[in-house]
Amino acid sequence: MSKKDYASLAMEAHRKHRGKISVEPKFELNTKDDLSIAYTPGVAEPCKVIADDTSEAYNLTAKGNLVAVVSDGSAVLGLGNIGPEASLPVMEGKAVLFKKFGKVDAVPIVLDTQDTEEIIRAVELIAPTFGGINLEDISAPRCFDIERRLKEKLDIPVFHDDQHGTAIVTLAGMINACRITNRELKNLSVVINGAGAAGVSIAYLLFEAGVEEVMMCDSKGIIHKDRDDLNSVKKEISKITNKNNRNGALADAVKDADVFIGVSAPGVLSKEMVKTMQDEPIIFAMANPTPEIMPDEAKEAGARVVATGRSDFPNQINNVLAFPGLFRGALDARISNLTTNMFIKAAEAIADCVEEPDEEHIIPSPFDERVPEVVAEAIRSLKG
Amino acid sequence: MSKKDYASLAMEAHRKHRGKISVEPKFELNTKDDLSIAYTPGVAEPCKVIADDTSEAYNLTAKGNLVAVVSDGSAVLGLGNIGPEASLPVMEGKAVLFKKFGKVDAVPIVLDTQDTEEIIRAVELIAPTFGGINLEDISAPRCFDIERRLKEKLDIPVFHDDQHGTAIVTLAGMINACRITNRELKNLSVVINGAGAAGVSIAYLLFEAGVEEVMMCDSKGIIHKDRDDLNSVKKEISKITNKNNRNGALADAVKDADVFIGVSAPGVLSKEMVKTMQDEPIIFAMANPTPEIMPDEAKEAGARVVATGRSDFPNQINNVLAFPGLFRGALDARISNLTTNMFIKAAEAIADCVEEPDEEHIIPSPFDERVPEVVAEAIRSLKG
Repeated sequence: MSKKDYASLAMEAHRKHRGKISVEPKFELNTKDDLSIAYTPGVAEPCKVIADDTSEAYNLTAKGNLVAVVSDGSAVLGLGNIGPEASLPVMEGKAVLFKKFGKVDAVPIVLDTQDTEEIIRAVELIAPTFGGINLEDISAPRCFDIERRLKEKLDIPVFHDDQHGTAIVTLAGMINACRITNRELKNLSVVINGAGAAGVSIAYLLFEAGVEEVMMCDSKGIIHKDRDDLNSVKKEISKITNKNNRNGALADAVKDADVFIGVSAPGVLSKEMVKTMQDEPIIFAMANPTPEIMPDEAKEAGARVVATGRSDFPNQINNVLAFPGLFRGALDARISNLTTNMFIKAAEAIADCVEEPDEEHIIPSPFDERVPEVVAEAIRSLKG
Repeated sequence: MSKKDYASLAMEAHRKHRGKISVEPKFELNTKDDLSIAYTPGVAEPCKVIADDTSEAYNLTAKGNLVAVVSDGSAVLGLGNIGPEASLPVMEGKAVLFKKFGKVDAVPIVLDTQDTEEIIRAVELIAPTFGGINLEDISAPRCFDIERRLKEKLDIPVFHDDQHGTAIVTLAGMINACRITNRELKNLSVVINGAGAAGVSIAYLLFEAGVEEVMMCDSKGIIHKDRDDLNSVKKEISKITNKNNRNGALADAVKDADVFIGVSAPGVLSKEMVKTMQDEPIIFAMANPTPEIMPDEAKEAGARVVATGRSDFPNQINNVLAFPGLFRGALDARISNLTTNMFIKAAEAIADCVEEPDEEHIIPSPFDERVPEVVAEAIRSLKG
């Protein structure tokens, strides 16, 4: 089906069901006794038990399996800053994916503010309700600060999927792309185009996984120490990437690189640029819906492995491979702080689900039922 | 069953199910096409439609049927200030009642603050997610200010159930108690003991429904203009109640009264006090779990009609008769401001469900399926 078909089918289904989630009772409520157990007077007993020991909320309420999908609607899909209400279909979509793939109960919480301090405070105030916080579609660079500070403040896991979900699945794909092309992570020369939430997080995770050489570009070209237009996050990036402090455009960056990772804009990588890369380069062109270069063009220019964000091409880098299992594991083990080490183990677990990787199979299908379980197990096994 | 039985059955059921609510997908997610309709790329279309017209969120997302049950855990049941986590079992109980009786999706939101300004701001910030706000178990007098200001700020219905839910069902019972005893609301002399959220709201609603003579007592005795220990809400109450500015204790207040309404503490109304009231008085002794006077004692002292908050005595004044239908109607008609007139119509609709009221039947059963529907219709019919 075409994108247009999906648009009209999506409108029809959303209108028919009035959204994608419902809240359902787990208790029967057919008799006076049922009422007295689910509500007064019986309910006073679990209340008292939790008042004595707050951690009992994990055993006696929905908290332990409930995740808030929090957004301010500032960076939704490729649509940009469309505001909280308009972001609800995406947040509900996330909630249904959480349930389907991770057996996690999730509810959207969209916020009537785009102020960093107010977002942090709002999430902090509602946190006792939830077992975890999934930040979603909050624009960079605010998203970095919001996630870091919430992680410090809260005793429940906080995860920004646009950063770390994308980074985990990218790393998983890269592990298998290296296997196919007989490369090793530590010898890769990587160019990342796009220095938003995903690009920055991919850079950090690749470094932690062993990659030593990364160059990043934004819409102005290569990020280097002498640029005076960098925000604080890009400034940090300029210190650890681009060791020789090169400058120039994307075309200059990709010359002799092994890997191009695009989290940027349609069509910015040309066939000519691909031809200047190392032999048999690895291309992850993840701009949605139109990639930085179309897979057939990349192949024609010599690319050995091509991944995109789309389900209609091979090798879809899809966050749904990571976040449901990741929260499943964190909730099961009551892990309050998700670590980079957990993200790497999750990526390795996802990569290992592909038994015989080849050019068109570097990443498992989103419907591979083993994936959420192995990711959850990777997280649980690292409980500190 | 005894209260103790309910306590242990409630603990067992809460522990087994880990709380009382789950979040369920309304969309199938079995194929790539399903994913493309519920999530990207299809989901972009409803996002765009809502970005163009925010009100479309009511048609295309769960917002239009989703209510937040908001508490700070400061005044939970008879347990007092037990904090947010410990209040979760009550809020989840409310959520299951919302679904069972009103087909409303409801989620608990418990807050990590008891500061009035922070509660207001937190609710304001999360409001775009929801079609309505049900405030719950927030202590007086903060609850009055919080509700009033949120009603002003938000374009969705805001309802404090401890105030208005109790008041509506009390008025419904009073209408039928008057029918049985051949009294009229406008001629009643009413004493309300307890000047918290419920007591104050009952007083206001009775006035609006036609009652002219109300005296209120708090733990210090009759509220009158010359007391210097009144908070701002009680000061307002002192201006419209107790016309002759009497002072004294509860025993002084009830002398010659037609009606005693207790939302206070166990056993504070003695048989001797009841004997000083008008003939065949009406007694609503709603302290939970132990009423201000036990029904058999009140009857022995001459009471004609006795109501309590308990399901094991006749005439249970149970909020569940009001809030599910009330929100059902408000959500159906997209009513942004619930009015006192709506509360009165809801009370009349509830009262009218009892076809032949007698001393033991002034109020319908919580399982009377007509009730939520007639309440919803009363609300919808008043859309301004």
